[in-house]
Amino acid sequence: MTSQILRKLLDDLVAGRATVDEAMQRLEGFPVALCRQDGAVVGRLDTQRAVRHGFPEVILAQGKRLDHLIAIVERALSQTETPLLITRLTRKRIAHLHSRFPSLQQAPGTGCLYRAAAVVDEPVGLIGVLCAGTSDIPVAEEAALVARLMGARVETHYDAGVAGLHRLLAAGELLRTARVFVVVAGMEGAMPSVVGGLVDKPVIAVPTSTGYGVAFGGVSALLGMLNSCASNVTVVNIDNGFGAGYVAGLINRL
Amino acid sequence: MTSQILRKLLDDLVAGRATVDEAMQRLEGFPVALCRQDGAVVGRLDTQRAVRHGFPEVILAQGKRLDHLIAIVERALSQTETPLLITRLTRKRIAHLHSRFPSLQQAPGTGCLYRAAAVVDEPVGLIGVLCAGTSDIPVAEEAALVARLMGARVETHYDAGVAGLHRLLAAGELLRTARVFVVVAGMEGAMPSVVGGLVDKPVIAVPTSTGYGVAFGGVSALLGMLNSCASNVTVVNIDNGFGAGYVAGLINRL
Amino acid sequence: MTSQILRKLLDDLVAGRATVDEAMQRLEGFPVALCRQDGAVVGRLDTQRAVRHGFPEVILAQGKRLDHLIAIVERALSQTETPLLITRLTRKRIAHLHSRFPSLQQAPGTGCLYRAAAVVDEPVGLIGVLCAGTSDIPVAEEAALVARLMGARVETHYDAGVAGLHRLLAAGELLRTARVFVVVAGMEGAMPSVVGGLVDKPVIAVPTSTGYGVAFGGVSALLGMLNSCASNVTVVNIDNGFGAGYVAGLINRL
Amino acid sequence: MTSQILRKLLDDLVAGRATVDEAMQRLEGFPVALCRQDGAVVGRLDTQRAVRHGFPEVILAQGKRLDHLIAIVERALSQTETPLLITRLTRKRIAHLHSRFPSLQQAPGTGCLYRAAAVVDEPVGLIGVLCAGTSDIPVAEEAALVARLMGARVETHYDAGVAGLHRLLAAGELLRTARVFVVVAGMEGAMPSVVGGLVDKPVIAVPTSTGYGVAFGGVSALLGMLNSCASNVTVVNIDNGFGAGYVAGLINRL
Amino acid sequence: MTSQILRKLLDDLVAGRATVDEAMQRLEGFPVALCRQDGAVVGRLDTQRAVRHGFPEVILAQGKRLDHLIAIVERALSQTETPLLITRLTRKRIAHLHSRFPSLQQAPGTGCLYRAAAVVDEPVGLIGVLCAGTSDIPVAEEAALVARLMGARVETHYDAGVAGLHRLLAAGELLRTARVFVVVAGMEGAMPSVVGGLVDKPVIAVPTSTGYGVAFGGVSALLGMLNSCASNVTVVNIDNGFGAGYVAGLINRL
Amino acid sequence: MTSQILRKLLDDLVAGRATVDEAMQRLEGFPVALCRQDGAVVGRLDTQRAVRHGFPEVILAQGKRLDHLIAIVERALSQTETPLLITRLTRKRIAHLHSRFPSLQQAPGTGCLYRAAAVVDEPVGLIGVLCAGTSDIPVAEEAALVARLMGARVETHYDAGVAGLHRLLAAGELLRTARVFVVVAGMEGAMPSVVGGLVDKPVIAVPTSTGYGVAFGGVSALLGMLNSCASNVTVVNIDNGFGAGYVAGLINRL
Amino acid sequence: MTSQILRKLLDDLVAGRATVDEAMQRLEGFPVALCRQDGAVVGRLDTQRAVRHGFPEVILAQGKRLDHLIAIVERALSQTETPLLITRLTRKRIAHLHSRFPSLQQAPGTGCLYRAAAVVDEPVGLIGVLCAGTSDIPVAEEAALVARLMGARVETHYDAGVAGLHRLLAAGELLRTARVFVVVAGMEGAMPSVVGGLVDKPVIAVPTSTGYGVAFGGVSALLGMLNSCASNVTVVNIDNGFGAGYVAGLINRL
Amino acid sequence: MTSQILRKLLDDLVAGRATVDEAMQRLEGFPVALCRQDGAVVGRLDTQRAVRHGFPEVILAQGKRLDHLIAIVERALSQTETPLLITRLTRKRIAHLHSRFPSLQQAPGTGCLYRAAAVVDEPVGLIGVLCAGTSDIPVAEEAALVARLMGARVETHYDAGVAGLHRLLAAGELLRTARVFVVVAGMEGAMPSVVGGLVDKPVIAVPTSTGYGVAFGGVSALLGMLNSCASNVTVVNIDNGFGAGYVAGLINRL
Repeated sequence: MTSQILRKLLDDLVAGRATVDEAMQRLEGFPVALCRQDGAVVGRLDTQRAVRHGFPEVILAQGKRLDHLIAIVERALSQTETPLLITRLTRKRIAHLHSRFPSLQQAPGTGCLYRAAAVVDEPVGLIGVLCAGTSDIPVAEEAALVARLMGARVETHYDAGVAGLHRLLAAGELLRTARVFVVVAGMEGAMPSVVGGLVDKPVIAVPTSTGYGVAFGGVSALLGMLNSCASNVTVVNIDNGFGAGYVAGLINRL
Repeated sequence: MTSQILRKLLDDLVAGRATVDEAMQRLEGFPVALCRQDGAVVGRLDTQRAVRHGFPEVILAQGKRLDHLIAIVERALSQTETPLLITRLTRKRIAHLHSRFPSLQQAPGTGCLYRAAAVVDEPVGLIGVLCAGTSDIPVAEEAALVARLMGARVETHYDAGVAGLHRLLAAGELLRTARVFVVVAGMEGAMPSVVGGLVDKPVIAVPTSTGYGVAFGGVSALLGMLNSCASNVTVVNIDNGFGAGYVAGLINRL
Repeated sequence: MTSQILRKLLDDLVAGRATVDEAMQRLEGFPVALCRQDGAVVGRLDTQRAVRHGFPEVILAQGKRLDHLIAIVERALSQTETPLLITRLTRKRIAHLHSRFPSLQQAPGTGCLYRAAAVVDEPVGLIGVLCAGTSDIPVAEEAALVARLMGARVETHYDAGVAGLHRLLAAGELLRTARVFVVVAGMEGAMPSVVGGLVDKPVIAVPTSTGYGVAFGGVSALLGMLNSCASNVTVVNIDNGFGAGYVAGLINRL
Repeated sequence: MTSQILRKLLDDLVAGRATVDEAMQRLEGFPVALCRQDGAVVGRLDTQRAVRHGFPEVILAQGKRLDHLIAIVERALSQTETPLLITRLTRKRIAHLHSRFPSLQQAPGTGCLYRAAAVVDEPVGLIGVLCAGTSDIPVAEEAALVARLMGARVETHYDAGVAGLHRLLAAGELLRTARVFVVVAGMEGAMPSVVGGLVDKPVIAVPTSTGYGVAFGGVSALLGMLNSCASNVTVVNIDNGFGAGYVAGLINRL
Repeated sequence: MTSQILRKLLDDLVAGRATVDEAMQRLEGFPVALCRQDGAVVGRLDTQRAVRHGFPEVILAQGKRLDHLIAIVERALSQTETPLLITRLTRKRIAHLHSRFPSLQQAPGTGCLYRAAAVVDEPVGLIGVLCAGTSDIPVAEEAALVARLMGARVETHYDAGVAGLHRLLAAGELLRTARVFVVVAGMEGAMPSVVGGLVDKPVIAVPTSTGYGVAFGGVSALLGMLNSCASNVTVVNIDNGFGAGYVAGLINRL
Repeated sequence: MTSQILRKLLDDLVAGRATVDEAMQRLEGFPVALCRQDGAVVGRLDTQRAVRHGFPEVILAQGKRLDHLIAIVERALSQTETPLLITRLTRKRIAHLHSRFPSLQQAPGTGCLYRAAAVVDEPVGLIGVLCAGTSDIPVAEEAALVARLMGARVETHYDAGVAGLHRLLAAGELLRTARVFVVVAGMEGAMPSVVGGLVDKPVIAVPTSTGYGVAFGGVSALLGMLNSCASNVTVVNIDNGFGAGYVAGLINRL
Repeated sequence: MTSQILRKLLDDLVAGRATVDEAMQRLEGFPVALCRQDGAVVGRLDTQRAVRHGFPEVILAQGKRLDHLIAIVERALSQTETPLLITRLTRKRIAHLHSRFPSLQQAPGTGCLYRAAAVVDEPVGLIGVLCAGTSDIPVAEEAALVARLMGARVETHYDAGVAGLHRLLAAGELLRTARVFVVVAGMEGAMPSVVGGLVDKPVIAVPTSTGYGVAFGGVSALLGMLNSCASNVTVVNIDNGFGAGYVAGLINRL
Repeated sequence: MTSQILRKLLDDLVAGRATVDEAMQRLEGFPVALCRQDGAVVGRLDTQRAVRHGFPEVILAQGKRLDHLIAIVERALSQTETPLLITRLTRKRIAHLHSRFPSLQQAPGTGCLYRAAAVVDEPVGLIGVLCAGTSDIPVAEEAALVARLMGARVETHYDAGVAGLHRLLAAGELLRTARVFVVVAGMEGAMPSVVGGLVDKPVIAVPTSTGYGVAFGGVSALLGMLNSCASNVTVVNIDNGFGAGYVAGLINRL
């Protein structure tokens, strides 16, 4: 709840455009769309998020019961015109939701479904999305999708990990021109450090669960990135392509 | 074994109402109902728990072999009138037990089966059960069920996590009136801190295994709650809706 | 910020007792006393905490620079009549602060300084504070101090760990009569489970950093308590006697 | 290779009963029965273990490929008269091996198959095997089986965890008379501490993977046991009923 | 080594402005100033970093032997006009270096010494630096210093953690106007999630080692931040105020 | 509290040799000697431990405040004739206590003080105490001291780790004749596995905090020992020479 | 990109054999074969690896989507004559790939497919591959396969763990003659320490995920190996037979 | 004890050159020099190590009591002509030992003292020792010292971490010519991966405890190295410069 909304409410009160009880009610209930299942509230959609954050409502599907998920998606889609993104869907759930809600679009290889904004402007800026290995591509693609949904121009360069530096240097043009980078890597997670040393722009590092043994499902890559000797690196959760693409999209707009 | 029981035993001895051997026997065998499977003791029901703790006997199903579980449930149900709660059942086991023991009631979405007390009084007090996300609802529902079985009035407010504060503030009435709170959250587990800062009642925090990557199956949420900068927060094990509802029920009676 | 305060503010606005700008100002600045050091704000005392939570303002000294700490204590003491508690002071800091602010009282063996409320009522209820070993006494004493400052009657029973059950059973009277328990233990942290099985009241477990090797500075005791097979146990952070005493005090008032 | 065997070899050499080459050969190859699969050596059975350690050859099935396992069992059974124990078999493997090698006996609920010694003496001594919950029974049964195969008299007392002390005290006779104890517990793993405080005999604690959340698959129970405030407790790996029963059997013979 | 430099080198070669041997030499040795101690190379200053990254050379003092540190600082200062920042100095080292190199300026309460650029432009943009508790101020101040050295306008708001939301809402103006945020917090690390939900700009979260027990020296705060349910949060290493200020400075320039 | 004592008490009651109130009093207070400091109970000595467990009262000094420690030692020594052992004393505390209580004997290199039993019998049995490196000697010596205080004959063999097998085989005579082994090792903790494979007696493994890096203060050695492929190995806490010697002493008596 | 290649490029430039644009192009694109799937680049094969490292291109299958994997294998096989190795294939994938690319050879029990070099020289040197238990054989076989593909003569000795030293000493001839050792072990991972003490050659230790409980999927074995008291031991990731065989092959060539 | 020595012993026995008792004695006592302190054995020097492993006896000082250390050093020095190395000495201990044993030489900045072999041959081969940052130099120097004591030619290249690739490429000549590499790095530990990708020789990676926060004292660097995507990397314990230099020396001799 931003201060602007609060100030508007106070103005209304002073101007007699609202009673105290109405104000309390609006304050408590306004920007939320309740999702019900069997009568019970199972979700509270932040319907102003698109306005406030310049981005569609996002639903993290993982962990939600299917009936809860459907109730929420249905409610979200009922708000005509709002863009929507659903992440971390299994293949089975993608098929199920896609057949039930045909307005949702697929993004192959990402576990996402989405409904783009009705009107999309020309992409702006440039975000470079790089990844270290072939196994990291799904996470990188999720980041690229999110950034594109936020209106950014995105270029990708995949399978260019640090044990073969020439594979990375082949992205010279992209390294020189992008405004912000998303670098996705598993195993030792060294790629953001190397990229960070080559560019003077923010680098958002995404560790992935790629690897085995002491890769610990991405924890080692995460630690490598947090300890990066390059100063322009910040980090998000393991496999969180969505978050990285989202922040890159925010930065790209500045 | 409380001191009262011991004192009663000693009184009986002194008064000649019991021999030493009888006393030893009662002391060692009294408040336990043995559950046997193929002749072997596989469970010792604490039949006085309902009397001592004001709550039905509780059986944690997870980890028990099915034949052991059935032997214990059968023995428990043989004690007519005692309420009973079975937690952490799989769907398959719920179906199996429910068809075998029709007196057990289902609690949808919780993994529980139960037999309520024969006579139930009007609910007393008020316990607020809140959760941060839709994925946390099953654990919250388990807490609410347990608290209700203990005679408490319970109100819930779900999907009101801290990244959209207005969703939480919408529960203003509940925040003002409940005597004790159960706050269920996964991921960073920040909700109990925020609720704890808004109320002057005990807050029982339940971390859930919701999340991915460094959520570590609920460990990060647990750590967040244990480190809470709000002083009125105590914590239970990950996904332990039962325990939180139980303690809230005890407190609600005071 | 509770809803009551918000409602009062809205009422004032509607009634013309406050302008919108005044309301914004009050909303943002009201219940905080700014602590400055060299002109910069280094602390924001929540001066209504005593009113809202029924407890003195609490200052966690650990981690604060000495000059910051002094600035905050000075500001807090300037609010005549408010009770105050400072925790986790080193011996050196206790001596320093005590000589500088003579109105602060010492609580031997606890790392605390405090100023009690001007008027103290007769202690009410009964809180049992138990600990497993002699090394756990300082943490238990901190809990007892806090509970007493909150108006509770407190009785203690120390060095009664589970490897000598008769030492615990010697507290039979206290186990029968207290309304809530604080149980402090290090090493394997088993005592809350055993106490929890003997009583039908809430048990707040406090792990301590007592022990060596795989005691891991209290983590093993913490894990033991979170995994307790007794259902009436909730847990706070390692060595957090303050938090346990605080919640016990809140429960004791219900 | 014990010194006795070495001395015998040296004696033979000096006495001319063996050449140097023969000695080298015997030294390197003697007490091992090679298990081959497709010609390659996949196992080296320590055929003198029964003589040296007074116990049958033990095969840990878990982790072995089925064809390797069969090759080893076949080789072991070919040594007529040697007792044999196979542990950590899945149900499917038990069925498979049992139908293939009918001389193997089943031990219900333990994941073990075995061939007992041809001649079994009267059981000696007394080992008490206790466990905290019903879920811990399979591990306890494995320990009891092993101890019995080593010639010990064994008595069990199950589902007697510390949150209901009277359930444990019901085992008073066993606590007074056994020479060594195996105590099996999951969750907080407190039972060995309590038993250890009641008896003056060695207690071998076995943590189990029973529990959920921060039970961490038995790690919390293990830590509790290693930190036990009872001095007569030693610990084995999680779910290692075999090891506990084995050491108890060794001690029982002394 | 950016592609531009490489292309320039290649151009020179083709144009005959450089021989192959000269090119190799320049390629290998060019942008590095060697720091020697007793003749041995102990540091390689990246003298073009200020040009490439728009920031002074930064020296992490922690972990370096004092003689090595002095050799490096001396070499860096010999490059007249280049700005310089030294971080993670102990008080003793600050005093030592400051007396030896008087051109270095102190930044009270941060462990930093620096030499600002000869010419400093008017600060641009706006970075909001917030922290949760008084103990977090030193880290926040480090971030603010770095951002200012990079030419940013910076405003701070300290001691405004989530257990007293009104303390945070008091920063309403800053929350509405900054282009990027640095949010510093220890303990449960919940503040970035709450701030992230209130603003639509990038939030760089800095966990601090503030706290005790299961704060684990900042790990719990770090985990909370990485698991943030607010999508606009990225994270840096524990206590890494430098890194957060640096990235905020880069973003602020876009 | 053993059952025998309970039965005696019940017999007294029935026989009229004790009233119920006396019984309660004896039950709760009997075998404990209260240690007071400034009037408050700071320790409860289990004065029957020597009778029950055949061993002196043991006081773990580490973690106890000095005044508490002195109060407890004083009370313990006041029970003439009872043997006493104090472990984990710093050098400073050894000097302090030794000068204050001259009846205490030193055990060089162990951190222990003790008072032996008035009458000591001829040592019985044989316990082998081995350690892997010179750094492990203090822990091994603590084990040897405890075992000797329990009446065992003890022989030691130090600095015989597995990377030089001949150093271990040099202990052939001891390996052949001891009834039970204590094996102390840090770093990878492999020695108990090797010893366990050479003998057919119980091996009590003691991990030590010897090592650096990923030795993790003894955790790696502990893990190695718990995972031992030798079946006759059980484990105690890191650096817990006392516990190992104690259990070895118990086994040696069987 | 080695310096030789760079120097060659620079020479060509100077000599007029290449333009700057050609040089940039070659520098960025030369030694990589792009693998495309649906037009997008999903892999960058380092086609000079065989030349540079003396080894076939290696593809880690684990974690790659099947369509990506096929695209990469297809591209790799299109380079006639280059040897190829694919590791960490499931049985299902082995069958799938083998039927699709019949030129690939199977290596039973290893999860690998490969295409050997067209011309293979006589094996050189000698690498000893040992493992502790039958469960470790698949990892050991992977190491042996890789070493053989690199031209080494390899001898194996399996199931020779430290709890039965004579099983290891039986490999005396191999211990005396190999130039480098690969030692594979799970559980406590002690075998490399013992082997390291017996030989004066480099020992590459491979921890395996063999074991249960606190084996932690190979972490305990890894820690044991990193803490080895034998100085000639280095370590690779858990189950990384490939890496160990690769390094052994490199060393064997020196 | 190598097989050769055993065979020699057997030959002597057969030939009558030794009796059985003599053989046993030699077998158990031969290649060990006992170090005594106050009559007790506190160390067993493996006096044949120099012969067997081609390296001086090495004494790890860390963790040893000073009196034990002196006893061992004294015994070692009494063996005239044997080279000797003592590692992990504090500055204070270096001064103490150096003044007591003047024949020991210092190796500035390494924590080592040593006595070189009487006759040293011309260094052979070439080992490249690289490190990422200035803080890593002491560990790198330890590795270089050890390698030189083993007869290797060593060249170093320090402070060349991956965030400034040109600093690493400046070592082009060394990268092309060394036979084996030691790469030392803290923080994210990425340098071995990058070096490993540039060379076709074995790379021994040494993580250091350089860094802060989630550097975890070198654990993150270690994990990065174990997860290296370069196949020619093996790893030793944190800060184990000695081990890396030792193995590099062994490899360099092949």
